[in-house]
Amino acid sequence: MSIELRYDERGLIPAVVQDAATREVLMVAYMNAEALRLTQATGEAHFWSRSRQSLWHKGATSGNVQRIRQIRYDCDGDTLLLLVEPAGPACHTGEVSCFYRTLLTAPRKEDER
Amino acid sequence: MSIELRYDERGLIPAVVQDAATREVLMVAYMNAEALRLTQATGEAHFWSRSRQSLWHKGATSGNVQRIRQIRYDCDGDTLLLLVEPAGPACHTGEVSCFYRTLLTAPRKEDER
Repeated sequence: MSIELRYDERGLIPAVVQDAATREVLMVAYMNAEALRLTQATGEAHFWSRSRQSLWHKGATSGNVQRIRQIRYDCDGDTLLLLVEPAGPACHTGEVSCFYRTLLTAPRKEDER
Repeated sequence: MSIELRYDERGLIPAVVQDAATREVLMVAYMNAEALRLTQATGEAHFWSRSRQSLWHKGATSGNVQRIRQIRYDCDGDTLLLLVEPAGPACHTGEVSCFYRTLLTAPRKEDER
């Protein structure tokens, strides 16, 4: 099933995690083949922690597990998209999404006219 | 402005591109500091093509530019989220999103009961 996937030189593939209901992008993390296998087997998101160099069952300590609704992969097979039902905030800060800070907001097109 | 961002050892940062209106995740690509600068300066998404090893103005040839509505960054500053208005399909295959293939679809929770 994963033969079409391209892991990088570290054996990792990035996974975008999106809330299946709200469509909010929650976080990006990395999987190795074993994390993907565990995710498929358990129905809950597992990742590879690059900082801890270990498998990471998201929510194992916080309780904020991410139940898998769908796993998609992109045209060149080097990125995953997980559609999940999160049991709580994705971010360790308590924010719903890790992407809670804004670098740039453009004026709306109508305002430009 | 980009001092809070963490580029990887190649000088790159992954960018998730999401349709600002439909909230569909369209693609993931990589930026270097110059691609981010051009994106902010022009209001259209620019990336670093790892295969071509060159700057890449998304849509320059296809016309399917991605107008920037917002740029967000995650809690550890190593991933960007671009909210865009796409002028056309994100994928070179003609699909709206590069994530048009499904690896796994889980049964809905109701079905499990």
